[in-house]
Amino acid sequence: MSEPDIFYILGNKVRRDLLSHLTCTECYFSFLSNKMSVSSTAVAKHLKIMEREGILKSYEKEGPFLGPARKYYNIDIAKTYVATITPNIFWYRGLDLGDERSGEVEINLDLLKENPESLLEMVELFMRVTKELEKVLEALRAIESRRDELMKTIKDTYLNEIGDMTQLAILHYVLLNGRATVDELSDRLNLKEREVLQKAEELDRFVPLRIKDGVIEIDEERLKAKLGGETDAGED
Amino acid sequence: MSEPDIFYILGNKVRRDLLSHLTCTECYFSFLSNKMSVSSTAVAKHLKIMEREGILKSYEKEGPFLGPARKYYNIDIAKTYVATITPNIFWYRGLDLGDERSGEVEINLDLLKENPESLLEMVELFMRVTKELEKVLEALRAIESRRDELMKTIKDTYLNEIGDMTQLAILHYVLLNGRATVDELSDRLNLKEREVLQKAEELDRFVPLRIKDGVIEIDEERLKAKLGGETDAGED
Repeated sequence: MSEPDIFYILGNKVRRDLLSHLTCTECYFSFLSNKMSVSSTAVAKHLKIMEREGILKSYEKEGPFLGPARKYYNIDIAKTYVATITPNIFWYRGLDLGDERSGEVEINLDLLKENPESLLEMVELFMRVTKELEKVLEALRAIESRRDELMKTIKDTYLNEIGDMTQLAILHYVLLNGRATVDELSDRLNLKEREVLQKAEELDRFVPLRIKDGVIEIDEERLKAKLGGETDAGED
Repeated sequence: MSEPDIFYILGNKVRRDLLSHLTCTECYFSFLSNKMSVSSTAVAKHLKIMEREGILKSYEKEGPFLGPARKYYNIDIAKTYVATITPNIFWYRGLDLGDERSGEVEINLDLLKENPESLLEMVELFMRVTKELEKVLEALRAIESRRDELMKTIKDTYLNEIGDMTQLAILHYVLLNGRATVDELSDRLNLKEREVLQKAEELDRFVPLRIKDGVIEIDEERLKAKLGGETDAGED
């Protein structure tokens, strides 16, 4: 799919909310629909649009009970999009994420301080700065590819070892956003605030959290302390 | 304006084409409308939407002839947008471009090769990779801020020293896209192919171009040779 189409997809709040839910876990229709504040007709319409545009893929799978198979959805693209709009510049590009690891990237921003005087010097500097831009985009692509892989491993490991979807949803949200308020999580997970807090406390037993004044973050200090212990013990 | 609204704006081809034209020069309505392949009613509608959303600003200015003042449009934001969509990650952010110059940015991609084994190690690595992402976004912001400034200076200098709008439009397009085909420029500037070629040959007298097989690029070798001469001569 081309970049313009993705902008169309992202231009709608219901579609953005659906994508957010789907990055946490593959979902079947009624599960997704229950999390959303719009009608199930609207949810169905937007899922259909995204499937048509190649953003989503759907498949049928038996539910846990007797009855018709459930329709599951997952995200079928892995891209980072960049767009710049100023009075002088307008461009956009989609970067394909993949598993190739990038080598070293050295980005030289010293040239941003040069002050060209003639038209030719300006043109030449613009071209050199654009080469640094290409390196930055390659670094962005490499980092987002790795974060995607890592998040997948974190999700798989959490579900295998601990198995609680709601705890994982809190971890996923906090990792992606740096922090989360209890209110945000309550809206997003469709839980009462005290249920969010209880789930966060359960999560904290596996991944150290700082829960204070209604804000939930990863507790980096305790995480490092735990890892220090773990690494020492694991040495052999 | 928030990120989601910009996605809505970028999700439409007429609006993207209008933005492209406006980054080259401020335009009045009938000039813009002539460049577009849709009706002037459609152009007016999309200009209105973008003005309402704060992307464009309009002002009245006397034209060169007697008659009513003309309505001019220019772009009123300077931002870079980044969005990632994968089965595991979905986020987006707008970066404000400005004139602050960034210092050195050292981006360490070695950590992308680490292979964590435990859940805690994965979480800790995800957080470290996210810190490198923040540095990459800062480098992107600094580079795009500088490219915006440089392009403005190139436009102003070209118009002051040479004064030909069409030559400048070709230079602007080639600098932003790395290269241009004669066909692309013919569509975009609403000129015949031979008129494009003639304008490119005029531009080449000021900024060296490589024009071959219908493709126009900056001729870096001749540009550097010219600059070498210029620098030597300018030394005092």
